[in-house]
Amino acid sequence: MAINKIDHIGIAVKDLTSSLKFYEEALGLENIGFEVVEEQGVRVAFLTVGESKIELLEPLNEESPIAKFIAKRGEGIHHICLDVEDVPEALGELKERNLQLIDQQPRRGAHHKDIAFVHPKSSSGVLIELSMDGKD
Amino acid sequence: MAINKIDHIGIAVKDLTSSLKFYEEALGLENIGFEVVEEQGVRVAFLTVGESKIELLEPLNEESPIAKFIAKRGEGIHHICLDVEDVPEALGELKERNLQLIDQQPRRGAHHKDIAFVHPKSSSGVLIELSMDGKD
Repeated sequence: MAINKIDHIGIAVKDLTSSLKFYEEALGLENIGFEVVEEQGVRVAFLTVGESKIELLEPLNEESPIAKFIAKRGEGIHHICLDVEDVPEALGELKERNLQLIDQQPRRGAHHKDIAFVHPKSSSGVLIELSMDGKD
Repeated sequence: MAINKIDHIGIAVKDLTSSLKFYEEALGLENIGFEVVEEQGVRVAFLTVGESKIELLEPLNEESPIAKFIAKRGEGIHHICLDVEDVPEALGELKERNLQLIDQQPRRGAHHKDIAFVHPKSSSGVLIELSMDGKD
C-alpha cells in the first residue's frame, strides 16, 4: 500500500468560531475555507499545516455523528486521514489480512475525493480514513 | 508563531508488537526505530508518513501517564506534536492570549528536541505538543 502523507487530522469541536480563535488566531494557521457536509451533519473549516491540514468539525444538529462523539467523549481528535495512491487497492490489502473496515468500498467524500474508513478495532482505537483524488 | 509541519501524532497502545502489525505490516509504513523514554514510562516506535511521523506509545508500567490514559479512554490518539520554529516564542504568544499551558517553559524531550505541552482546555480537547530541535 502506498501512503503519501497525512492528509488531515479531524477534530470534533462544539463551535467553529471559538475553536478558530486558537487554531487560526493563536497558532496562526491559514484557514483555507469552510464547507458544509450535509450527509455528515457538519460544518467544517480547513487549516493548513505543512503538507497536511487540520479539519475542525462542528455538528449542525444533534443527530450528527460528531454531536454524538462530543456528547460521549467531549471535544477532541475524531479521526486521521491518510492520503493513499489507490483506495480500492488499499481496502483489498486490508481485507486480505481480515482487518475490520467501516467502508467495504470507497465512497465520494468532500473535495472530489474517494474515501473509506477503517474500523478503529483494526488500528489500536484510531478511526482512520483513507483518501485519494477522485478518478472522475 | 511559525509552524512548519505536523511533527508526529502520538497514539497510546497496549502492545507495540500487536499495533505494529497494523501500522508497519498492513499499512506498510517504515518503522524507523524504538526508544525507551523512562521519565514518561513508555516504549515508543516511530513510523514515517510523508514529512510527519506516527509515534506508538506503549506503557512500561501502570504508573505511566499512557497506562492511565488507556485505562480511562482505551487505546487511541494521545497527542499531536507541531514542529515550530521557536518554542519559547510560541509559549510567549500563547501566554499573552491567556491560554492555558501544561509547560510554562520548554523542557528537553526525546531526540534532542525542546518541547512544551499546551493544555487541552486551550485547544478544543486536543493535547498539543510544540517541538523544535534543541539549540545545544
